[in-house]
This record gives sequence, C-alpha cells and structure tokens, in this order.
Amino acid sequence: MGRVFSNMSMSLDGFIEDANGSVAELFEWYTAGPVVTETANSDLEYRQSEEDAEHMQSVVPKIGALITGRALFDLTNGWGGSHPVGAPVVVVTHNAPTAEEWPHQDAPFTFVTDGIEAAIKQAKEIAGDKDVVIASTTIAQQALDAGLLDVITVDLVPYLLGAGKPYFTNLANKPVRLSNPTIRRGNRATHLSYEVEY
Amino acid sequence: MGRVFSNMSMSLDGFIEDANGSVAELFEWYTAGPVVTETANSDLEYRQSEEDAEHMQSVVPKIGALITGRALFDLTNGWGGSHPVGAPVVVVTHNAPTAEEWPHQDAPFTFVTDGIEAAIKQAKEIAGDKDVVIASTTIAQQALDAGLLDVITVDLVPYLLGAGKPYFTNLANKPVRLSNPTIRRGNRATHLSYEVEY
Repeated sequence: MGRVFSNMSMSLDGFIEDANGSVAELFEWYTAGPVVTETANSDLEYRQSEEDAEHMQSVVPKIGALITGRALFDLTNGWGGSHPVGAPVVVVTHNAPTAEEWPHQDAPFTFVTDGIEAAIKQAKEIAGDKDVVIASTTIAQQALDAGLLDVITVDLVPYLLGAGKPYFTNLANKPVRLSNPTIRRGNRATHLSYEVEY
Repeated sequence: MGRVFSNMSMSLDGFIEDANGSVAELFEWYTAGPVVTETANSDLEYRQSEEDAEHMQSVVPKIGALITGRALFDLTNGWGGSHPVGAPVVVVTHNAPTAEEWPHQDAPFTFVTDGIEAAIKQAKEIAGDKDVVIASTTIAQQALDAGLLDVITVDLVPYLLGAGKPYFTNLANKPVRLSNPTIRRGNRATHLSYEVEY
C-alpha cells in the first residue's frame, strides 16, 4: 500500500512563495545544473545537478497519484491535461468543471467534490501500490489535521524570503512531532523527508 | 580572522520558541542520546547522540565570543557568570547593570551600550582568530541587515510548532541569498550551516 506524502519547495524561513506570489528563488534547483530530464509535459524539462536529478529519479517513478487544489489547477490551466510528473491527478474542488471548461476529457484527471478524505481515498485507489503526493498547502494541512498525512517532504531552499505563504499554518493539533529526516543534498535545495508521528 | 555566526534551534516551520515561549521540543537534541558532555557551567551537562556530540565538539571550541541581548541575559540571570559554551559574552543593552545588579564582576562579560556594530567590533577583538556567535534573533537580524553576519547556522528540529517566534523576520533587504549548506545529521536535529551571500 502506498503512502500519502506532501511536498513543497520551501525557503529556510518557511515560505513556499514570496510576498508577491513568486516561486522563482524556490524553484532554482529545477534548473541549477547540467543534467537534462524530460518531463511528461513536452513543454517542460529540468536541468539539474546530478544529485537533484538522482533525487527526482528516486521519487517521481513511485508517484501513483497527485492531489491538488482547484486554485493551482486553474492557475496552470490544468497543466494542459498533462502534469509534468506524469501521474494521474485528483483535483479537490467545490464544483467539477464542465466539458466546455475542461476540454481534456481523456486526460487522467479526477474531480472530487466531497472533501479531503474522499479525495485521499480515491487517490489511493488510483495509485495502488504507489504513493499519493499532495502538492497544495491547504490540502496538506487538511490531511495532516485529519491524521491522513504519512510523510512531509521538503525541498529546503537556501534563501530567506522574509514574508510570503507558509507551508503549514493553523495546525489543528500542535506541536506535530516528526521523525528524524532522510536527507539528500542538492544544488539550491536540500531534500528532507519526515514521517509524521501522530 | 574569525567570522560572525548566528545560531538557533528552529522547528521545521521556522520557530525558535513556541507560542508559550517554550523551547522544550526544540532543545530535545541536547538530551537525546548517551554521550555525556560537561559544559563550562557545572549545573549543566549534555546527553546527546554521538553525531550531535561530535557536532558540538566541531563547533564549540572555535567560539571566541558570544553576543547576546539583554532579555536573554536577564532571563538566565547572566548564566550565573558562566555561560555553558565557556566563551566570553558580549551583552547588547541600553544600560549596563550596576555592580550591585551584577555581582560577577570578574566574569568575562562585556556590556555594550552603543549598538550592534560596536558590539560586533568588540566581540571580534575578544574572539581574535576564533568565531563570534550571535544567539539572539533580534541581534542576528540587526547584524544581517547591517551586512555583518557571515554565516547562519540552524539546528533544524523535526517538529511543526504551528506558531511562535520566528528566527528571522522584518528583513531590511529581501530575499537574502544563502549558499548551499553544510549538513550534519543528529538525533532530533539536523545541523545546517549557510554562508550569507550579500
């Protein structure tokens, strides 16, 4: 059975975007080296250090489903129907888009309108033995509060942003104790993975 | 010539004390293992993992002076005149304590009343070839803003505290770019050291 992960690139001072909503500094590690990796989205390739590329190779093939929120889905126009990670996507939303609003009806996108627990259940079914990754702070927070988040992963980026949007905030139960992390070094990110100890 | 460091134990979500002012979770790594290290303060010893004890051994002997604020000095009663690190202490304050208020007149404590730059200058003179360590968020922030902080070190602790006092806030210039870190693993803390790239 796969597990439920959250993942974010985060500044040393805890922000996943700056005060203007930019992630330019936080995403430097995707293009901070010579190793080219093509993604499932033909418009996008990574150019990373060897360590970061190896890290991605250790993570991405194990992803069986992604959970995202409606805001990111809208912002990216649903990745044109093809998420760069190459995994099926579960979108947590109040209303599923109509066929007119969402022309990629054959794409592996599922819209869940009855909350986080239903979304995780559906994503786990889609993922099978692989992992479910949550790439939304709001949804990661809801999963954590519901006791459904197994692992918190962080690409810790060597910047102080000073202000912006935090990874976790308004925790229902605190403190949240985590395991010691597994650690992988990279260029412009340190990859940390913590198990949540409920 | 030594360099100017800041150091704090910080939760994964960026806090150096929780909403109640407690550091219990953040300081677990000082007592999370079997290796006993005596400190310069006879009332205090550390019981750490081998990795954490080795980390301390790699850092503490290089400290030539500590800079602290008046609040921490008062809170700890000036460590009874003997800081556990065993280095001279420079206290940044508006008013030096009187001989009555501070009975440890022979202890290596210096009170600086004319601001952060004077305090760093004096601490560097005291430290000689060794490093100056700032253990105060307010003073670390002032040093960073003044371009006088060389290295930011963090003992990154596997907890989400959800709220509390952040390490850095109200940065005068942002973003602040840091180097890739050096990394040492520990038990209940990961020791990260970043050079500030002004």
